[in-house]
Amino acid sequence: MKPAGSGFIDHLCCSVCEKRFSFDELQTYCKECQAPIFVVYDLDAIKASVQPNEVKIRPRGIWRWWEMLPVVDEDRRVSLGEGDTPVLKSERLGSELGVRNLYIKDESQNPTGTFKARGLAVAVARGLELGVETFVIPTAGNAGGALAAYTARAGREAHIYMPADTPKAIQSEVLASGANLHLVDGLINTAAQQANEIAKKNKWFDVSTFKEPYRVEGKKTMGLELAEAFDWRLPDVIIYPTGGGTGLVGMWKAFAELHELGWIDAKRPRMVSVQSNGCAPIVRAFHSGAETAEPWSNADTFATGICVPGAFADRLILKTLRDSDGTAVQVADKEILTAQQEMAQKEGIFAAPEGAATLAGLRKLIDQDWIKSDENVVLFNTGSGLKYV
Amino acid sequence: MKPAGSGFIDHLCCSVCEKRFSFDELQTYCKECQAPIFVVYDLDAIKASVQPNEVKIRPRGIWRWWEMLPVVDEDRRVSLGEGDTPVLKSERLGSELGVRNLYIKDESQNPTGTFKARGLAVAVARGLELGVETFVIPTAGNAGGALAAYTARAGREAHIYMPADTPKAIQSEVLASGANLHLVDGLINTAAQQANEIAKKNKWFDVSTFKEPYRVEGKKTMGLELAEAFDWRLPDVIIYPTGGGTGLVGMWKAFAELHELGWIDAKRPRMVSVQSNGCAPIVRAFHSGAETAEPWSNADTFATGICVPGAFADRLILKTLRDSDGTAVQVADKEILTAQQEMAQKEGIFAAPEGAATLAGLRKLIDQDWIKSDENVVLFNTGSGLKYV
Repeated sequence: MKPAGSGFIDHLCCSVCEKRFSFDELQTYCKECQAPIFVVYDLDAIKASVQPNEVKIRPRGIWRWWEMLPVVDEDRRVSLGEGDTPVLKSERLGSELGVRNLYIKDESQNPTGTFKARGLAVAVARGLELGVETFVIPTAGNAGGALAAYTARAGREAHIYMPADTPKAIQSEVLASGANLHLVDGLINTAAQQANEIAKKNKWFDVSTFKEPYRVEGKKTMGLELAEAFDWRLPDVIIYPTGGGTGLVGMWKAFAELHELGWIDAKRPRMVSVQSNGCAPIVRAFHSGAETAEPWSNADTFATGICVPGAFADRLILKTLRDSDGTAVQVADKEILTAQQEMAQKEGIFAAPEGAATLAGLRKLIDQDWIKSDENVVLFNTGSGLKYV
Repeated sequence: MKPAGSGFIDHLCCSVCEKRFSFDELQTYCKECQAPIFVVYDLDAIKASVQPNEVKIRPRGIWRWWEMLPVVDEDRRVSLGEGDTPVLKSERLGSELGVRNLYIKDESQNPTGTFKARGLAVAVARGLELGVETFVIPTAGNAGGALAAYTARAGREAHIYMPADTPKAIQSEVLASGANLHLVDGLINTAAQQANEIAKKNKWFDVSTFKEPYRVEGKKTMGLELAEAFDWRLPDVIIYPTGGGTGLVGMWKAFAELHELGWIDAKRPRMVSVQSNGCAPIVRAFHSGAETAEPWSNADTFATGICVPGAFADRLILKTLRDSDGTAVQVADKEILTAQQEMAQKEGIFAAPEGAATLAGLRKLIDQDWIKSDENVVLFNTGSGLKYV
């Protein structure tokens, strides 16, 4: 069934105060709460319209979940083949670590080599639908590469603000696509200031993390795919490298929606955030019991994707970890490097440092007896190590 | 139905003299003809056992075609999620070039970022099945990265011989996986000499291009997927960057098998080889009418994957081009660079130089009126530009 008008979208609302926003206009975030806006679907209508088995046999990629995505016009669903990345059983690492059912979801097999493709595909598609000509993004690197690719594919303009010390491969990818690359003297928060200013001045669409409602919907598909891969019984533990937290929050939203659809039961994974010792605002806030995270001073880690001193969705990330009975763990850059080698040597996966950090985090959780040997554990390799050579 | 013994394999035979070889032992090539050995399947049995719709709904990846692959034991089918790469409609480039139905099969979304994953997955799997402990390969780069990953995943040893000037990203990928990297002063033919010698001396399994029967079976899956993507009516033209030619010959074999199965009709695509001006032995031989290709002297192109002065399967490649009413075209490195930018800027695909070469080749064929505006044309992007930064 093809939807008309606003498809299966019921409304948009602030994730804190639940104030409603129109779906027909481009939205940013709730200025009163300084919090993200979420898309709310008419799940009863979706339930009556589609079954899991139907979604399963559609052509591969994130758009086979279109009923649960905020893009109504089929022709606007810009795609480079993102999504449907493999969930790889990790027999060798698993048996060494004493975790019999260890899996790695390998997001490096997305277009542009990282999980960022999912969110930007949806944000660009929704932008197209609402007439956006120019997109702007502050980024630690990979989200910029993804925006550059999707705007090129869609024939739109992009301005990308990233730290000057972002790996060369990522800069080259952005430049190749013809996007406008602005190198910034500072971290992603400095890039964000500059991007926000220029966006406001020129009325460009700013797709900063969680400052628009669409990227998180794209990232949500990681959760949808995981549920399907585990035959609609979610794994026990998900370990996720946390920068801006879009994937973590997105998956949690996906699970809630799937539950309401009746496709999964009430069981949820324990969600774990991994950060680097050099920038661990979420870990610090989680263990101090705080509801929000103080920005991290002098942030520094070679895992640039998780070098995010202050996440805009800190409140949502912390709530997700707690609601799930999860935790947050920090690891040293040296441990990340070791884990990167281990993942490559034991499983043949040349992971990005952020992805390798999840394995380093797993080791800590095993040492703390936080994980039982028969639990299903999923690590997210969020990108390819090739981008960091 | 799970097969016993040799599955659906009927026999192995020389691609020239048709001499038979045992499937139960590790095979190399026909020493008398200096030609590749092919796997021959019992296609009548496969036809009776499986239908296209059944293959379609199996879990993604090359192994959903297992009846047509030479690995019998399900547990040996080593995998990193290779295959089922997207076929992307290229609306913007297509309309600019006046080719309405232009597609890019994006092989960069394979594990290790290139199409090499397919062939090496199958060769390592069959090696495992036959008790191989150590694999050796000469490579222009990407096949080495793939072998390193699959042997790591399988817990086996690899020795990789590649030119010292191979891009750093590829070298890093090999080293990360713990494989033994041997840098060679020369091109892939020099690497091949050294690899062959060490393999012979130590009785290691040499997976040089076409010097064993299994990699081409893995590459064949590109043709199987393409047939399925086009709803079992093959496209009119396939443009393929040609180094060793495994993919070209493999797809041609796939089409013959699918035809015999009755899954496609007699129509075949016109197959086109693209090479660089700096190393074009197949193009030269094709247009001179020769049945084999003289080795190219002083080969030199930045598209390292097609810098293959003498392909072992030259006879098969040339025969495929001619049997298909295809052609061969050479392009300048400068044209490849321009095409790489075009593909990134118009379609958001940051292609490897070899992949971009197909677009440069397409331009020449359009100039020659060799392609009609309403034909279905497929370009193969064989890898990610990220590996060449």
